[in-house]
Amino acid sequence: MKLDKNLNILIIGLGLLGGSYAKALKSQGFKVSAITKDKGDIEYALKENMIDYGTTEVDKTLIESADLIIFALYPKVFLDWIESYGNLIKEDTVVTDVTGVKGSIVYKVQESISAEFISAHPMAGREVCGVKNSNPEIFKGANYIVVPTDKNTEKGVEMCKALGDTLGFADVSVLGPEDHDKMIAFLSQLTHCIAVSLMCANDHPDLVRYTGDSFRDLTRIADINDEMWSELFLENKKALLDEMDSYREAFDKLYNHIKNGEREDMRQMMQLSSARRKLFGKRKTS
Amino acid sequence: MKLDKNLNILIIGLGLLGGSYAKALKSQGFKVSAITKDKGDIEYALKENMIDYGTTEVDKTLIESADLIIFALYPKVFLDWIESYGNLIKEDTVVTDVTGVKGSIVYKVQESISAEFISAHPMAGREVCGVKNSNPEIFKGANYIVVPTDKNTEKGVEMCKALGDTLGFADVSVLGPEDHDKMIAFLSQLTHCIAVSLMCANDHPDLVRYTGDSFRDLTRIADINDEMWSELFLENKKALLDEMDSYREAFDKLYNHIKNGEREDMRQMMQLSSARRKLFGKRKTS
Repeated sequence: MKLDKNLNILIIGLGLLGGSYAKALKSQGFKVSAITKDKGDIEYALKENMIDYGTTEVDKTLIESADLIIFALYPKVFLDWIESYGNLIKEDTVVTDVTGVKGSIVYKVQESISAEFISAHPMAGREVCGVKNSNPEIFKGANYIVVPTDKNTEKGVEMCKALGDTLGFADVSVLGPEDHDKMIAFLSQLTHCIAVSLMCANDHPDLVRYTGDSFRDLTRIADINDEMWSELFLENKKALLDEMDSYREAFDKLYNHIKNGEREDMRQMMQLSSARRKLFGKRKTS
Repeated sequence: MKLDKNLNILIIGLGLLGGSYAKALKSQGFKVSAITKDKGDIEYALKENMIDYGTTEVDKTLIESADLIIFALYPKVFLDWIESYGNLIKEDTVVTDVTGVKGSIVYKVQESISAEFISAHPMAGREVCGVKNSNPEIFKGANYIVVPTDKNTEKGVEMCKALGDTLGFADVSVLGPEDHDKMIAFLSQLTHCIAVSLMCANDHPDLVRYTGDSFRDLTRIADINDEMWSELFLENKKALLDEMDSYREAFDKLYNHIKNGEREDMRQMMQLSSARRKLFGKRKTS
């Protein structure tokens, strides 16, 4: 299902994701406006024909005329915005977001505004940030997760799914906030913790010349946006620490097998690893 | 420098690497023969025009007529072969290998044969094995490391480097056995330990649908040849355990920062990670 073409869409925060949303929607004929803090980003987005209108002001009329508001801000900035200006959002507007953690966000926002807030997580990050790097191609082959609570309506959920479809995501699915946070802790946050730890473990600039594909692939995400990820880690602390504990337990088990020369036990872990990895398959292509 | 075209080359062990060596060399006009344990692999290699001659026997005449013998066997099989038949190798032959660990191999082989053994590590593994998957394309963009000891001659080292050039490796370099093993423990073995531990940490078959590129990239190597890697880990135990210790220390540090909500400390680790990762750059292309 695609989004109704007559919707007035307002994007708040023109970064990598907000900009990519804007590009994808404007190119399909939607009316797209934006509020963002940097004037240069508005000028860039207008020049690139990514938006119809943009402002750095919290423009009451613009907010009231939006049928769909998409927040593309970091978690804390998003919560602060809602606290300060959430009352400007009309009751019949639908509000969504792109935040990478949910438990600490969704309920607070739903309690703070009268409009329906239907949360979503577009799993399409990149190592780069900012509106100038925005590109709807990052949605191809990626997952879009709609994260409703008991407070959401079927209409809100369907509209949010339609947004994911319209943006060009390969897979649109639905998960509750707690399941989402557990999943993201394991699949995304833990992998970033691992890559960062590996890069911090050893200062071997002389090793660059010997780096193979396995090291490069494993540490691709080690070039990390520290402002955003430190916030995401802390906002999902409990689930992340649980996954870090499970992982460290497996790592220590392998360590002890190596230390004790327990080859058959090592091989069993490797066989389990291979069998599970085969399920995950290769990189999706659109 | 390229290898002298008149050399008689004997490859012992026609697996993924032995087969890829054979293809690369035969296609450039070298005379290539092979000894391997499986008759079907010889037949396949002959049919594919990868070798001029092959046998499953330890053929004395073939071994004596070789100018260059390349061992492409697993570490223990290689050492066993040398112990049983090393005396068949003539003194003026040059012998090399593809083994992924060096300290536990190189000195033993050099003590066991009268010919010059100049060890090398072609860093070009794949998740697949066997002669039917062999393909010299795997050498493009990859590193070839020559691993000499005090016993090697300049001529032997130069010949081994020329082999790496001839095979089409992007970078040919020289490292001592201990430096090699420390490097490989960090860049290759530790990364495999991490990927295996991550896959063993959590049984979430339902998560497949949400897997993003970061998880897929990080666990690509989790589909692992357990026979070969368990052997490589044990043959390089000390260096590997050292690197695992350093890595776990960094991981625990990050864990504690998250647990204690020390955001600035987390950000410092992420900034260090980003700075180091930038040095390693992107995947090489040939």
